[in-house]
Amino acid sequence: MIIDIHGHYTTAPKQLETWRNAQVAAIGNPSAMPSAASLHISDDELRESIEANQLRLMRQRGSDVTVFSPRASFMAHHLGNFQVSSSWSAICNELCFRVSQLFPEHFIPAAMLPQSPGVDPATCIPELVKCVEQYGCVALNLNPDPSGGHWTSPPLTDRHWYPIYEKMVEYDIPGMIHVSSSCNACFHATGAHYINADTTAFMQCLQGDLFKDFPTLKFVIPHGGGAVPYHWGRYRGLAQELKKPLLQDHLMDNIFFDTCVYHQPGIDLLTKVIAVDNVLFASEMIGAVRGIDPETGFYFDDTRRYIDASALSEAHKQQIFEGNARRVYPRLDAALKGQGR
Amino acid sequence: MIIDIHGHYTTAPKQLETWRNAQVAAIGNPSAMPSAASLHISDDELRESIEANQLRLMRQRGSDVTVFSPRASFMAHHLGNFQVSSSWSAICNELCFRVSQLFPEHFIPAAMLPQSPGVDPATCIPELVKCVEQYGCVALNLNPDPSGGHWTSPPLTDRHWYPIYEKMVEYDIPGMIHVSSSCNACFHATGAHYINADTTAFMQCLQGDLFKDFPTLKFVIPHGGGAVPYHWGRYRGLAQELKKPLLQDHLMDNIFFDTCVYHQPGIDLLTKVIAVDNVLFASEMIGAVRGIDPETGFYFDDTRRYIDASALSEAHKQQIFEGNARRVYPRLDAALKGQGR
Repeated sequence: MIIDIHGHYTTAPKQLETWRNAQVAAIGNPSAMPSAASLHISDDELRESIEANQLRLMRQRGSDVTVFSPRASFMAHHLGNFQVSSSWSAICNELCFRVSQLFPEHFIPAAMLPQSPGVDPATCIPELVKCVEQYGCVALNLNPDPSGGHWTSPPLTDRHWYPIYEKMVEYDIPGMIHVSSSCNACFHATGAHYINADTTAFMQCLQGDLFKDFPTLKFVIPHGGGAVPYHWGRYRGLAQELKKPLLQDHLMDNIFFDTCVYHQPGIDLLTKVIAVDNVLFASEMIGAVRGIDPETGFYFDDTRRYIDASALSEAHKQQIFEGNARRVYPRLDAALKGQGR
Repeated sequence: MIIDIHGHYTTAPKQLETWRNAQVAAIGNPSAMPSAASLHISDDELRESIEANQLRLMRQRGSDVTVFSPRASFMAHHLGNFQVSSSWSAICNELCFRVSQLFPEHFIPAAMLPQSPGVDPATCIPELVKCVEQYGCVALNLNPDPSGGHWTSPPLTDRHWYPIYEKMVEYDIPGMIHVSSSCNACFHATGAHYINADTTAFMQCLQGDLFKDFPTLKFVIPHGGGAVPYHWGRYRGLAQELKKPLLQDHLMDNIFFDTCVYHQPGIDLLTKVIAVDNVLFASEMIGAVRGIDPETGFYFDDTRRYIDASALSEAHKQQIFEGNARRVYPRLDAALKGQGR
């Protein structure tokens, strides 16, 4: 089985974006704020948006199950206040849940949180509880920078974030550390902000001792871990300078990288440098890079090809495709087993 | 000959730091501000600080010439105002010039600029003119984020920066895009802010069309280009999404990466993915990562070993060690030729 642990609902029917635009336009003008009930998307529309896109490509590429969360760049936690994020998260999470009900063999949901800059993360707990207990979410996406490129929240190692971590540990769900769009002109969202956030999150964990407080907490750092595997010597050296344990002891029981690296040499480096236990298959399809690589004739984000072509053993490939996901996402494993898989 | 295009004066005699601390403490209190004349560092002290450190390691490792600029993490353009940065830059640049006079075969200077957040970069021109015309600087370090981790300046493609670029083109000197320390708790300086800035600078150039306005402008992106070579497929794909030319046509006449990547697999990826014309030897020694890699028994930042052990041909290695530096830094080449080298 091939499990893609990083897919977003980037292809939702148009009325979702229309509703969001109306919501954002109504910030500061409560009388114009659209109600959640005013958004109508039928099951047929959901089915069509998935069958023509993600599911079509999953079939082409041979992946079976996708951990499916709301579109990351649309989370935009920096827009409006907590109430705005709260309504928006509820809508987006419900859509991913509905997709998982329509395609139970292929999609299993992960939650976005109603984060808002300067607001206590504990306010996200009710949405998280609903998503896990009612929607069957097997993971969450945690935005380390709800300000959208201004980085006004404390580092992930700060007690600020502990309410979320306590719930993650209680539910035994991993968190993907994933920013959203950038409202800082310096940072292109998918070309700079995403990758920087991955690198930043890893270094924050390296500097701190978070996993002493939460030995079973699990972070998935997407986009191949940002710059980290490429600079693995730098990070091993910085850990040494900072008198931290070796990275495998300090961080690698708790941090995992996905395979959203869109060329063969990058995947070859990732799988050579990072222990196989810490690498999880993902494509972020349909996401930031949708084109066909003129050098190969295949989609940039068809990451299965790079794993298949890597020097890994078949057993290690299967671990990356399936085994690690079952271990790091126990609720995913339980759900699959509940389906006899 | 082996030319290291990225060395900082991280080992200056202690009185430099003492003077700087006094200067920073006097911000907002002009009567306590120390004069430049109150700092005394003798030639013998300079000699000792270099011979025991950078020059000792250059001899051990077999590199011949270092392009030598003030300590990057001490630039701290976010502290104080333009006048504070101006006095500090003048002192630091003069010290690198003096080192180059004391060791003319081994060190050639590059300038830091008296940048200050919110201040027109044109104010940096007088210091730059002095550094090139009087000190023989062959390059400059340009900080894309003088705010120190808050990213309040416009992207590098903005006309805001053009006064600097005009002077760089006039002098035919490259600019290393190099941030300084971070005053944002989210970003560890050398583990996150540096690498993020490298990635960000590349993506800013990718989004824009700067090199149409300045076809001969040259940027060196240090630390192996941040995350860029590891995610080269992503950047090729994003260029395609943004309807830009192929990266080699869009950017690679103007952008170069150094080899400050502190493990063999990273250098192997860099030299495999990036055309040999665009890779310049560097170690940033003595810099962020000073220890010995327990996996190899050699210094993490002994990057010569990784180039030597790479799959490159001897001709390509020599290009990375020397030829590219002479081409990208014409004033360095002229200075070496003036010495009969």
